[in-house]
Amino acid sequence: MTSIATAVRRQALSRPVVREAFIELVATAFLLIAVVGSGIMAERLCGGIVGIALLANAIATGGALTALILAFGPQSGAHMNPVVTLAAAATDGLRWHAVPAYIAAQIVGAILGVWLAHIMFELPIWQLSQHARTGLPQWVAEVIAAFGLLAVIWGCRAHREPVTAFAVAAYITGAYWFTASTSFANPAVTIARSLTDTFAGIPELNGLAIEMPWAVKR
Amino acid sequence: MTSIATAVRRQALSRPVVREAFIELVATAFLLIAVVGSGIMAERLCGGIVGIALLANAIATGGALTALILAFGPQSGAHMNPVVTLAAAATDGLRWHAVPAYIAAQIVGAILGVWLAHIMFELPIWQLSQHARTGLPQWVAEVIAAFGLLAVIWGCRAHREPVTAFAVAAYITGAYWFTASTSFANPAVTIARSLTDTFAGIPELNGLAIEMPWAVKR
Amino acid sequence: MTSIATAVRRQALSRPVVREAFIELVATAFLLIAVVGSGIMAERLCGGIVGIALLANAIATGGALTALILAFGPQSGAHMNPVVTLAAAATDGLRWHAVPAYIAAQIVGAILGVWLAHIMFELPIWQLSQHARTGLPQWVAEVIAAFGLLAVIWGCRAHREPVTAFAVAAYITGAYWFTASTSFANPAVTIARSLTDTFAGIPELNGLAIEMPWAVKR
Amino acid sequence: MTSIATAVRRQALSRPVVREAFIELVATAFLLIAVVGSGIMAERLCGGIVGIALLANAIATGGALTALILAFGPQSGAHMNPVVTLAAAATDGLRWHAVPAYIAAQIVGAILGVWLAHIMFELPIWQLSQHARTGLPQWVAEVIAAFGLLAVIWGCRAHREPVTAFAVAAYITGAYWFTASTSFANPAVTIARSLTDTFAGIPELNGLAIEMPWAVKR
Repeated sequence: MTSIATAVRRQALSRPVVREAFIELVATAFLLIAVVGSGIMAERLCGGIVGIALLANAIATGGALTALILAFGPQSGAHMNPVVTLAAAATDGLRWHAVPAYIAAQIVGAILGVWLAHIMFELPIWQLSQHARTGLPQWVAEVIAAFGLLAVIWGCRAHREPVTAFAVAAYITGAYWFTASTSFANPAVTIARSLTDTFAGIPELNGLAIEMPWAVKR
Repeated sequence: MTSIATAVRRQALSRPVVREAFIELVATAFLLIAVVGSGIMAERLCGGIVGIALLANAIATGGALTALILAFGPQSGAHMNPVVTLAAAATDGLRWHAVPAYIAAQIVGAILGVWLAHIMFELPIWQLSQHARTGLPQWVAEVIAAFGLLAVIWGCRAHREPVTAFAVAAYITGAYWFTASTSFANPAVTIARSLTDTFAGIPELNGLAIEMPWAVKR
Repeated sequence: MTSIATAVRRQALSRPVVREAFIELVATAFLLIAVVGSGIMAERLCGGIVGIALLANAIATGGALTALILAFGPQSGAHMNPVVTLAAAATDGLRWHAVPAYIAAQIVGAILGVWLAHIMFELPIWQLSQHARTGLPQWVAEVIAAFGLLAVIWGCRAHREPVTAFAVAAYITGAYWFTASTSFANPAVTIARSLTDTFAGIPELNGLAIEMPWAVKR
Repeated sequence: MTSIATAVRRQALSRPVVREAFIELVATAFLLIAVVGSGIMAERLCGGIVGIALLANAIATGGALTALILAFGPQSGAHMNPVVTLAAAATDGLRWHAVPAYIAAQIVGAILGVWLAHIMFELPIWQLSQHARTGLPQWVAEVIAAFGLLAVIWGCRAHREPVTAFAVAAYITGAYWFTASTSFANPAVTIARSLTDTFAGIPELNGLAIEMPWAVKR
């Protein structure tokens, strides 16, 4: 996202923060529509084979991420993630005074996205997740997922701009499967997911509750 | 599609509208062959697990869209969608007098594509869908799907040309799963789909009839 | 493949046809290893749900095609298909005297690839397909598949070189599902497939024998 | 990886080998997290249909490889494979004195990755594979897989840099299905896999034990 950050820097004087924050809000809302909406659809159609649902969920999220980062990256950086925004401020020249607006917009957008997914699939808009999960393995997964995401973003600085979009989308598509992370190392997603109680598919296998990224206890 | 639109503008005097409209017809016919044909094949092979059929349908449509936009984009813009054509006329410099020819070609091409899919899979060519679906959730889904598609197309203007093809294909692959849209915000597809009655897979789950993009009531 | 063809033209004097033909042989052998090998593996692992096998077959073939066209395209054009070679000679400047060597190499390579797949999966090397299929729907499918492939290759001339690889691979991944073609409009594949009798999955559904691209009657 | 190798050459004097080796360690650890972690998740969620597990495993590995090569390629070449490192030294200008450090880092990283996957999925860290497989078909598969990988890397020298990442990831995604290789022609993966005994899915079908890349006998 170097070139994106460069663009952000260049436009710092001519483009008000509120416009960029609004773009983040829209992009993050779409990301949550993709994560939650495809999770609902996938669970309903997977015939009880959770692996098919997770495959659909991962592919749909990857497709959406590719499109969202390509479309909104040149406008706001398409962070859609407070961790990415903080990293961009620390190392990529994003103005620090823009950070609170970005993060607030990401959280509001994420919640809006969850609600729009509920509306589309004819579910109660207001829900609370019964879900809670913690412990060392979970934290190791979150740290690995977050470290990998930042490594991909930083490493792609050596390439021209659109490459980052494909790298991040490919990474997240894989990370659905390999990190056991339930929040994609994204605090905005974590907050928004606490407001959906739509999915139940938590297979208890081999003594470990495998929770799909979108899985919550009913 | 900025650069595509630029190319369209540049060639406005030297290239007759009829040629571009013919390209749109061929491209839209192929799109419907991909949507309807892969839907027929997928339903027949999915062993009753609708999620597998929708996954195949989404991946096949995404592959076809990638190829069609890359191949026909430089010729006509590869809109394959009246909404995209109207947006291109409003903001991207497509000549307004070309719009009727584009839209007519897209509708004719879409219908031809449905009929060719019927022929390939040894089905009656002439069919009428028994399908009707409406209501607030459906309209929310269509508005979100259409808004997202235009946002992706507009947002990708900041990139070089072939990027739009990958972004639109990735978006539609995801949107099969996350928007619950049954027409991809594409009036030509809506019209053409009313002429196929091939698919039955409408699982009634959780009190909501999930209709796959290609699903119709028998 | 314009730029590829340009490279071919430029090197016409310095590079002997035999070298390019050998590259075609290797590339086509790998293509058939991918088509037949992934078909064997997929059939064995799909648990009787043919849609899963076809999805794996299509994704594996698409991945292999992407890699093969990117890797061998700059050397020989990576046609791997007599129809593409003839089209390249007719319109892209491939020397006509190279055509017989290309086509012979593609056929030999395709047969070698089938045999190597048999060896890897511990099957009898020499087999004859019991398979025969013809009729109008089949011919419509083959014509559509071939026309689409050439349209994609020709249309991508407007882009820089590596784009064609992604477009062709995406097209074929989709065409596994939407054209009902059993030979990908590729005579070399058709010949080579007559030498493998490994797959049985021909579901008779809705009165139509859906044959997967790699399916043969036992 | 030509351009990557060029970068490596250019920086040979200014960048200590130890830094590049550390990058290889991190990249290879992530690769094994992706291979083993997605294998564990996939096996648990596939409902006994091994094809779904292998599809998820292949797609997750392909996504991770895309991201890892794009992110770490400009730093160290992102070989993640002793065979690739040896080939880079023989033909691409990697300094020979860097080879031992690269290979040691790849092996250590691969083992660390396996252990981190075990921790994330709450499994015993220290395991020994009961797995042993050999014979002509297996060796043919390994030779084909390795030859294909090197052909893809060498062939992509004709393109600009980021193309290699997509080509290698697409090749490996396909090769999960078509080569019957269990180690991806990667000695570091072979060594690391001997330290995990997590997967059982070895279907004995048609007289041949199909072993998934991550499959071991219990």
